Amino acid sequence: MTGDAGKLQTTAGKARAEPTLSLAGVFAPLPTPFTEAGEVAFPQLTSNLERWNQQPLAGYVVCGTNGESVLLGAEERVALVRSVRQEAPAERLVIGGSGMESTKATIALTARMAEAGADAALVITPSYYKRSLTAHALENHYRAVADASPIPVLLYSMPACTGIDLPLDTVVALSQHPNVLGIKDSGGSVSKLGSMVLRCEEGFQVLAGSADFFLGALCVGAVGAVSALANIAAEKVYALLLRFREGDMDGARRMQHALLEPNACVTSRFGVAGLKAAMDMLGMYGGPVRSPLLPLSPAEREEVRRTLQEAGYL
Amino acid sequence: MTGDAGKLQTTAGKARAEPTLSLAGVFAPLPTPFTEAGEVAFPQLTSNLERWNQQPLAGYVVCGTNGESVLLGAEERVALVRSVRQEAPAERLVIGGSGMESTKATIALTARMAEAGADAALVITPSYYKRSLTAHALENHYRAVADASPIPVLLYSMPACTGIDLPLDTVVALSQHPNVLGIKDSGGSVSKLGSMVLRCEEGFQVLAGSADFFLGALCVGAVGAVSALANIAAEKVYALLLRFREGDMDGARRMQHALLEPNACVTSRFGVAGLKAAMDMLGMYGGPVRSPLLPLSPAEREEVRRTLQEAGYL
Amino acid sequence: MTGDAGKLQTTAGKARAEPTLSLAGVFAPLPTPFTEAGEVAFPQLTSNLERWNQQPLAGYVVCGTNGESVLLGAEERVALVRSVRQEAPAERLVIGGSGMESTKATIALTARMAEAGADAALVITPSYYKRSLTAHALENHYRAVADASPIPVLLYSMPACTGIDLPLDTVVALSQHPNVLGIKDSGGSVSKLGSMVLRCEEGFQVLAGSADFFLGALCVGAVGAVSALANIAAEKVYALLLRFREGDMDGARRMQHALLEPNACVTSRFGVAGLKAAMDMLGMYGGPVRSPLLPLSPAEREEVRRTLQEAGYL
Amino acid sequence: MTGDAGKLQTTAGKARAEPTLSLAGVFAPLPTPFTEAGEVAFPQLTSNLERWNQQPLAGYVVCGTNGESVLLGAEERVALVRSVRQEAPAERLVIGGSGMESTKATIALTARMAEAGADAALVITPSYYKRSLTAHALENHYRAVADASPIPVLLYSMPACTGIDLPLDTVVALSQHPNVLGIKDSGGSVSKLGSMVLRCEEGFQVLAGSADFFLGALCVGAVGAVSALANIAAEKVYALLLRFREGDMDGARRMQHALLEPNACVTSRFGVAGLKAAMDMLGMYGGPVRSPLLPLSPAEREEVRRTLQEAGYL
Repeated sequence: MTGDAGKLQTTAGKARAEPTLSLAGVFAPLPTPFTEAGEVAFPQLTSNLERWNQQPLAGYVVCGTNGESVLLGAEERVALVRSVRQEAPAERLVIGGSGMESTKATIALTARMAEAGADAALVITPSYYKRSLTAHALENHYRAVADASPIPVLLYSMPACTGIDLPLDTVVALSQHPNVLGIKDSGGSVSKLGSMVLRCEEGFQVLAGSADFFLGALCVGAVGAVSALANIAAEKVYALLLRFREGDMDGARRMQHALLEPNACVTSRFGVAGLKAAMDMLGMYGGPVRSPLLPLSPAEREEVRRTLQEAGYL
Repeated sequence: MTGDAGKLQTTAGKARAEPTLSLAGVFAPLPTPFTEAGEVAFPQLTSNLERWNQQPLAGYVVCGTNGESVLLGAEERVALVRSVRQEAPAERLVIGGSGMESTKATIALTARMAEAGADAALVITPSYYKRSLTAHALENHYRAVADASPIPVLLYSMPACTGIDLPLDTVVALSQHPNVLGIKDSGGSVSKLGSMVLRCEEGFQVLAGSADFFLGALCVGAVGAVSALANIAAEKVYALLLRFREGDMDGARRMQHALLEPNACVTSRFGVAGLKAAMDMLGMYGGPVRSPLLPLSPAEREEVRRTLQEAGYL
Repeated sequence: MTGDAGKLQTTAGKARAEPTLSLAGVFAPLPTPFTEAGEVAFPQLTSNLERWNQQPLAGYVVCGTNGESVLLGAEERVALVRSVRQEAPAERLVIGGSGMESTKATIALTARMAEAGADAALVITPSYYKRSLTAHALENHYRAVADASPIPVLLYSMPACTGIDLPLDTVVALSQHPNVLGIKDSGGSVSKLGSMVLRCEEGFQVLAGSADFFLGALCVGAVGAVSALANIAAEKVYALLLRFREGDMDGARRMQHALLEPNACVTSRFGVAGLKAAMDMLGMYGGPVRSPLLPLSPAEREEVRRTLQEAGYL
Repeated sequence: MTGDAGKLQTTAGKARAEPTLSLAGVFAPLPTPFTEAGEVAFPQLTSNLERWNQQPLAGYVVCGTNGESVLLGAEERVALVRSVRQEAPAERLVIGGSGMESTKATIALTARMAEAGADAALVITPSYYKRSLTAHALENHYRAVADASPIPVLLYSMPACTGIDLPLDTVVALSQHPNVLGIKDSGGSVSKLGSMVLRCEEGFQVLAGSADFFLGALCVGAVGAVSALANIAAEKVYALLLRFREGDMDGARRMQHALLEPNACVTSRFGVAGLKAAMDMLGMYGGPVRSPLLPLSPAEREEVRRTLQEAGYL
């Protein structure tokens, strides 16, 4: 069983020469497995993918926040995209996280990820020079990347990590660029998501950046989610989407509520280390995080286990 | 036509000796009309109420953020509650905003508002001593108020004004108090709202604090909204609620989208002055704001007018 | 021995018909004593003042942050000013904290405090309607208060409590008002303090809002401090000032360092409850805080005691 | 004329086998010159250095915030260190900014910079995974870097860019590590700086991260500054230090005041683009910034020019 997205579907929207990628569905932002020595563990990635490939996922985000992208080198990032592309079913999208602080470096990495098989690029806002990163500077950055990119670009706003909330008006302006496909917004404001859907160019696709506001996001017009939780419970996240589509709002609400605690466990509460610990408990390969991230303490690990048990995952 | 709330309905929930007030529906947080001389304009309040009483509202919040409560004296606040209670239909709830920085003063004002006819009290988080207002201190404050109050208490979290986001765990703990009826949360996180509904005592009622995330809030279990926009477009906000209840999610989404721009105009963009300007344009009495709030500039006023026109309100 | 300020001294500065109050020296922001029943404890205030009057203080701030002003009623605030004025030596300044959210209420309370004997008014920024409180609105507020006030006005910026950092350009503009005497800035940025001294009207006087950056503030031109620590260690804070004036920078630095730990104890770490606990330990009347502030836990109290001992206060 | 720091001086302090580097003096955080095509402009770096080498600077920070480090590749960063080391007088310190998000990458880059001739490493706090970067995680990161580094390590706290303010207790704990030399703190709180000097291991050296609080920092025990302004006005910044050392506090205050406006111009107001524009005006090579940074608008450039003129630099 697969998800909904696909490479050759056409969505309504801005005039483009080619069919637009559909982002409908649930995407897993893959954690990057490391060996105990700290190297990327490609065989373990393969074994994890064998499992993910069986899940109702529309595709994979490689080298996003959950992939510890800022702790990886460019070579590693490209190799990860290549590896996932080779082992993912052809109809599943592979989205490469290619954002860097520098516009030029982002363009270069995007090109390399495209060459390695990425279907689209996820480009996080630069954030270091906060006082200089005005709406104008951010728009300029994304236009340059979108102009140069051989593959469609997704905007990525992640204020909890970057301290930058990509302004609504900037998103609206960028939605008119023919190579800007949509946005992953992890800010959690359904008011902002709704305004995007309302005001952006038709065909601009909005993804919720976490499962904890997925139902609210769907209600205002988001087409899918990139959900850390989908790495361990894709069928649950997808079930929420199906209930919503079927108009079963009571069922959708129950699914949403059921997701909240396990989702917090692998995102806001324990972060990537929590996600990897949960994967280990569920028979996948989670393995260590890279420093400065720390492994969970025994007490934290126990709390993850209890949460997974209460949610019926274990 | 009236809204949904009522004084004598029973909702499922925590064991209480008496029937619980239902907060289902749309509430208008009434702006306080002032004369040009700056006094409370009671006759204009009456004329506005004649109009609001015709709208599908479940009740009124008196002396909330939109009522410029922090710019009013205690006498004015009590008189406003008394006036609204006298002129509102008996089945409509009158909720008095009785929160002060001091626990003792909050208790005293709550008692006076109850005596003046308020059905429930809306108690904003104290916020001045931010470093001392730990979760423990906030819980202690609310317990003291709820213990003393002759009427049910609603928690009120409004981080954009107070800098305090009432913690989820504190809300959950307070939901077990028999005199805590629910919460008005204006923070805009449907993730937090959903967690409240999931984890709070059954019968604890959640209200969205603004119309811009109303649909998302309903989807995760909120029962209603306190919406500034309802002062000028109650039927639109209520229509969203009806569509949602009927399971017409496409209709609900359209209503939600249609509300976003006019809602921003009377809340985040132009605040209370924007709301009052809009009321003036729509044939109600808006009148001046109290200083340090400023009246709109001509250009801002024009933007309000254009937004109302585009939304079909004018 | 007394401090340095005085009512009849003339400082260089903007053309004023009358001699300007000098703010040079150390001011104590008096905590408000309460009985166990929670009422203002005037006899205990008197006994505390007998002690403070022996200390090298230039004057007293009544109803500031340390006075729990936001937890007091207007009657209490006026009575406190009157009481302190009666019991303070004539040459000591009594500065009344008269700021309220409302401009009109601030004007009224300022007038009443002036009538009760306050020499100057300390007016904190309003802060509730943060999104509307632009630089323009804040300037407008202060101009109205300064125009109406029978006594000189001090600006008061306290971002840790209000979330509002009074903008530098606004301070500069207001410094030209003949009835704006200076500022108490608790933000802790000596860069901002230095820019004020540089750019403000000559005669505009800058007070550090806490002892922990007093030496840095003096170096860039501040004339004094309002220091919570001065309630229990005025001679230490004053000694720092004397060393600085004498050009004994090594001595001043040693004094500054010695103040840091006890200062944190009665401000950022334990707040007003910490200050009151320290006063109790030192033979003054601290007494209870008003809710929602909480008394110290036994462990916190022990930490206060240890800090006072290590600093040689006990 | 040279500054004060030196490689072979011994300062009092923690027991170390070898003499400790002295950080006393003024350091310039060198901007990285780029050609119009965007490549590092080494010949222009050389010509700039010929000028800086004549200034009273204790050394250079290469690849700090002003060096656009996050917009450079690792190869470029190492080459810049090598180039500056070759062209700087032997007695001047060359400090390489080697911080990365990943501990392992930081260790690797530090080693390469040491091999390229850096005398010390400046290691900014990682910042992306804010929720996971607890005090414990930050301390762990720095310990690992300091353990592995062949050269002494300076901590670097830059909250305006990273959103992370390295906690005081963490600094104190790290000051005991024999290979942690000191800190560059750009947060601007002299209270925190004073507490560091008070509580850290003797010999731990504190540098102000900007000239706008240099005097305040010196007063509480900082030994020097890393100042963007020193790139265009080293003698002015150094003069402040000399006045302070001579006990000429009036002179020092005048120098501090005179620095404020030009300093703001090349830091908080216009950032690196402002610094480079100022260098161009002063006959050095500023050149373009790397995107996403934007060049100044003509109006901004004019404001820089006016500020330099008013400060007497032009």
